[in-house]
Amino acid sequence: MERICMIIQYDGTNYAGYQVQPNGNTIQAELEKALLKMHKGTVVKVTASGRTDARVHALGQVIHFDTPLKIPMNNWKRAINSLLPADIQIVSAESVPSEFHARYDTTGKEYRYFVRNDQHPDLFRRHYTHHVRAALDINAMKQACQYIKGEHDFTSFCSPKTDIKGDKVRTIYEASITSDMDEIVFTFRGSGFLYNMVRILVGTLLEIGRSERKPEDIIDIIQAEDRKAAGKTAPPQGLFLWKVFYN
Amino acid sequence: MERICMIIQYDGTNYAGYQVQPNGNTIQAELEKALLKMHKGTVVKVTASGRTDARVHALGQVIHFDTPLKIPMNNWKRAINSLLPADIQIVSAESVPSEFHARYDTTGKEYRYFVRNDQHPDLFRRHYTHHVRAALDINAMKQACQYIKGEHDFTSFCSPKTDIKGDKVRTIYEASITSDMDEIVFTFRGSGFLYNMVRILVGTLLEIGRSERKPEDIIDIIQAEDRKAAGKTAPPQGLFLWKVFYN
Repeated sequence: MERICMIIQYDGTNYAGYQVQPNGNTIQAELEKALLKMHKGTVVKVTASGRTDARVHALGQVIHFDTPLKIPMNNWKRAINSLLPADIQIVSAESVPSEFHARYDTTGKEYRYFVRNDQHPDLFRRHYTHHVRAALDINAMKQACQYIKGEHDFTSFCSPKTDIKGDKVRTIYEASITSDMDEIVFTFRGSGFLYNMVRILVGTLLEIGRSERKPEDIIDIIQAEDRKAAGKTAPPQGLFLWKVFYN
Repeated sequence: MERICMIIQYDGTNYAGYQVQPNGNTIQAELEKALLKMHKGTVVKVTASGRTDARVHALGQVIHFDTPLKIPMNNWKRAINSLLPADIQIVSAESVPSEFHARYDTTGKEYRYFVRNDQHPDLFRRHYTHHVRAALDINAMKQACQYIKGEHDFTSFCSPKTDIKGDKVRTIYEASITSDMDEIVFTFRGSGFLYNMVRILVGTLLEIGRSERKPEDIIDIIQAEDRKAAGKTAPPQGLFLWKVFYN
């Protein structure tokens, strides 16, 4: 058996999320369907770096699986892509040691969240941005990002629906905002992220951008260790799993 | 009765084209369905500047219709948008003289065609660009554009499926190409366009870009007055009706 690691991209618009579930089409189900065909009916289980929610996208999701097939590494990408729908594509494939694990070996992740900040929606970007009509104070949001960085207990920024058993302490290496014309991009890079964490961070930052909260409120929200202290969860379609890091 | 003119945008991905037809969902059908609701069951016919094909988009399509309703002009846009699906939106609405005609009064149109020129497809742009893997000679295509400009009989660039009865002489004021990173944008502005004309122009220019034809071949293709002399019809998803001009 050979362990293969792949970087994949997907447009999450038409999926119920990454993980296989009884109802609804998922990214994992499509990947396993393609591998089932390649393996002539033998089930191949795929492990990802983590889940993504319904309508959330990925530019650099990482998966691994084991295969008995002897296929030159260059051909894997083309072979699977020809079996996948147009909204899921393999970017690269490589052979990895059998100890490699796409989920347990991650040392960090980067997410980006796209906001369109304009009076009018852009219908061509509706599946890939969150549209915010109200004028946003970018500097206030940037200032708030300074309080997000570092090692904190992020319980306040975690959905109560989480199944995380351990502590909710994570380290955020980068929390930054760039804006160009009517597009605002939030970038978060950290050791790990809790369930809905990026979307709750963005939802809270947008409330600061609308002057409904102050930048330094982030300090109190973190200290509260209570989901109710933070802002609304921003909608899924603006979120991209950008990159997964390994040693 | 008041005649109202509107600029509309749409993502043509999930439509069988602009014009109402027996099979398939169309932009016109969605507009008339929204107006039917606003007029409490009275049918309101919509006239557009022209049709667009299945999967073709519009940033500045123009329509008109007549209404007995007394609604402040500012409220029309919001009222119809709330009844339209997210992939069709009214940009602006204005009251016009009853002689105005969205189709007969056009003095010109601008189309843009988007190509992604890269080894890899961008799945997030798959509905809005035509993906071309082969390296393209941009300068050769720009040179070819010079032969497209001006007044010509464009029979060679018209689908034989056309129902145009009159002559096929049109004036092209602008035929230009810009490229930025992996994106190439073709812009065509002219007095009018024949059926599939922009897509056949782009398909032919791409063959010049791939050095399968020479820039000056455009002269012979125009002179042939024969669809078979020109290149393939480029696919619909890269095409946008950008703007419609009136006096």
